[in-house]
Amino acid sequence: MLKKIKVGLIGLGTVGGGVVEILNKHADDFKARAGVDIELVRFADRNPSRFVELGLDPALCTTDPFEVIADPAIDIIIELIGGTGIALEVCKKALESGKHLVTANKAIMATSGHELLKMAEERGLNVRFEASVGGGIPIIGPLKRSLVSNEISQVMGIVNGTTNYILSSMASEGMSYDEALAQAQALGYAEADPSADVEGDDAAAKIAILASIAFNTPLSMDQVSTEGIRTIDAADISYAKDYGYAIKLLALANRTPEGIDMRVHPTMIAKSHPLAHVNGVDNAIYVIGDAVGETMFFGPGAGSGAAASAIVADVIEVARDIDNGRVSIQCSCVDDLAVRDMNKLRTRYYIRMVVKDQPGVLAKTASIFAANRVSIESLIQHTCEDERFAEIAYVTHDAYESDIQAALGEIRSLDIVEQVASLIRVQDL
Amino acid sequence: MLKKIKVGLIGLGTVGGGVVEILNKHADDFKARAGVDIELVRFADRNPSRFVELGLDPALCTTDPFEVIADPAIDIIIELIGGTGIALEVCKKALESGKHLVTANKAIMATSGHELLKMAEERGLNVRFEASVGGGIPIIGPLKRSLVSNEISQVMGIVNGTTNYILSSMASEGMSYDEALAQAQALGYAEADPSADVEGDDAAAKIAILASIAFNTPLSMDQVSTEGIRTIDAADISYAKDYGYAIKLLALANRTPEGIDMRVHPTMIAKSHPLAHVNGVDNAIYVIGDAVGETMFFGPGAGSGAAASAIVADVIEVARDIDNGRVSIQCSCVDDLAVRDMNKLRTRYYIRMVVKDQPGVLAKTASIFAANRVSIESLIQHTCEDERFAEIAYVTHDAYESDIQAALGEIRSLDIVEQVASLIRVQDL
Repeated sequence: MLKKIKVGLIGLGTVGGGVVEILNKHADDFKARAGVDIELVRFADRNPSRFVELGLDPALCTTDPFEVIADPAIDIIIELIGGTGIALEVCKKALESGKHLVTANKAIMATSGHELLKMAEERGLNVRFEASVGGGIPIIGPLKRSLVSNEISQVMGIVNGTTNYILSSMASEGMSYDEALAQAQALGYAEADPSADVEGDDAAAKIAILASIAFNTPLSMDQVSTEGIRTIDAADISYAKDYGYAIKLLALANRTPEGIDMRVHPTMIAKSHPLAHVNGVDNAIYVIGDAVGETMFFGPGAGSGAAASAIVADVIEVARDIDNGRVSIQCSCVDDLAVRDMNKLRTRYYIRMVVKDQPGVLAKTASIFAANRVSIESLIQHTCEDERFAEIAYVTHDAYESDIQAALGEIRSLDIVEQVASLIRVQDL
Repeated sequence: MLKKIKVGLIGLGTVGGGVVEILNKHADDFKARAGVDIELVRFADRNPSRFVELGLDPALCTTDPFEVIADPAIDIIIELIGGTGIALEVCKKALESGKHLVTANKAIMATSGHELLKMAEERGLNVRFEASVGGGIPIIGPLKRSLVSNEISQVMGIVNGTTNYILSSMASEGMSYDEALAQAQALGYAEADPSADVEGDDAAAKIAILASIAFNTPLSMDQVSTEGIRTIDAADISYAKDYGYAIKLLALANRTPEGIDMRVHPTMIAKSHPLAHVNGVDNAIYVIGDAVGETMFFGPGAGSGAAASAIVADVIEVARDIDNGRVSIQCSCVDDLAVRDMNKLRTRYYIRMVVKDQPGVLAKTASIFAANRVSIESLIQHTCEDERFAEIAYVTHDAYESDIQAALGEIRSLDIVEQVASLIRVQDL
């Protein structure tokens, strides 16, 4: 006879609906296959029409999340409200009330995650958050467990489906950024206000979470150097192809002798790299460990089923732990590494600028690059449609970020330079 | 103060050496990060020179594996002998002696795995075997845990690095099968006797293990319909390219209404599919679940570091379980599905044959296909260098395996047909 594990579900959006669906469909399978008896016993959402849409017993539903948390019969709270306002209060209150916590909330885990993990540890409770990164792709579990035997040197990935859809559409269909964004919005892949996705904040939260686990160090999203994709132009996509690259919004975290190098920005990667073939709303996360070498985890980064798959797996693991009277290893942040200054980055850069088409321009920019220790590997120059202007696309040799920024500062101030239109880092893989 | 978990290591080949190296390097990290104190306390290998090469204390070494098992201080036995002879005795004896077992032995797990798991369950012991499939790629852990919330419909992958190296070299460098095999042997990617790899048996063992977990059903490698890559010719690679496909040795297991469809054979897959970009000795495993959708796990399928990474992760998990006084969920083979007859396969087929270049040949073969309910989607015909002969490459519409085999039986008996050179199944993804 299995002990029944009682779960309260707070937040009944599409992902919450997915959780209800999986447990309706497979609760008996989980008894047989996983040895746990899980039941959703209370539901909360601010919108009562969701109770009807999901066919829930009205007696089990409330618009007050704290009513669910107050139910003494409940073992596990699933928080699917999102954002850092009421959701953070719900998470804290759940732990204070002795409930285990499963959440998909990347914003909370990337800002207050360590506070929650500490609260849980003090109370002998679990906090699980597999769905906060990569949708249904198993990545947090594998990092914590399957790759625990490795010293991880790099975690790098495409972790935002919206921006990957936009960049993929620009590359495959020759769309402009605005056209691709509009299409993504029409298909429901981008929000009406797409800022959190296209400015890179969503990806920054996710890489902070992954890096915390990979490097055993408490990290938050405000420590991630973050640039979005708004400035990427069809011209950049075209030059990237000429140079043999794809442009992806990469989230990276590298272990370096000077600390953790952690950033999100549009990146040129070789077309031959597996990440270059991750298109549309798919996500993929690359992990390099000293023993295993290079591994990649690929799958749908979003969608109600994918996220619900990860949430229910977390609930099953917590239920097993409850049955076994134990708590799983949480983030073991015992290393506390420093975060490296972005200016210490040394990599190759792609730079596109629009200049007045007159003699001496190339010499002038080249001498500024040289004076700042930036050496040019190759360049392509075209006269623009407006023949008074020319466009130059440079790729540099390895250079320091600080030198690049200093050089571009000087170049921007030249009156022969109309615009430094794009700066994209090149990742050699 | 952590309890010291004592481990006996049996088999000191390259992977065993990798295990020694990881534990030498990271044992202190595992105490801090994973909360377990693991020590290798006894070593066995039939070749005593390995003790010296690995710098082991001679007092801890023996050529008799059963001496290690008999040591009452040991908690966990790592079996890295390989094969099904003495290794199986070692695995059984370890469990009979109350030791937890970690093994990389796919041959044992794909033939006697369920017997070992049952023995372990009766004794409250763990058996772990992540390294038996996909080298260091986390796949068994994710299937058992991260994807436990899904009903899995398909597991499919490139799980043999040797054959993937050979097929990749044939495709990228235009080599013949024999040239590619010789190069793989020269680089240490293929054995002097490559049969187990090139005939598909290694891949069959691995898919049987994965399917057992995915479908909660005890399965063994002799239930896998298995064909190797020996008959693949440079001409097939070339036709595949013309048709927009790559040829890979796929191991597949599908849940179907008539039972589990489980097979290993050379397969044409669309060049746009992520598996088509898995080249060289890399492995990748694709998993489709009803909630998560399509996920892929990619990485190095072999190598001492990769396999050792998985083995040490298993040891750490078992050590945590020992500390917690519990045993993790093993294969929960509660569903016991039937295996479908290969003749019930319905898919598209590529068929290459060499015929006498004379009128009526095409009509004759076409009428035999039609009489056996096989409909041709497209064909390419070339005159051979020896102008008396022509080569025809067909791709069929969906047809039953039984009908294809019947048609080819009739076609082979025609005196105008010199040879049915290749039969490659086409996987629509």
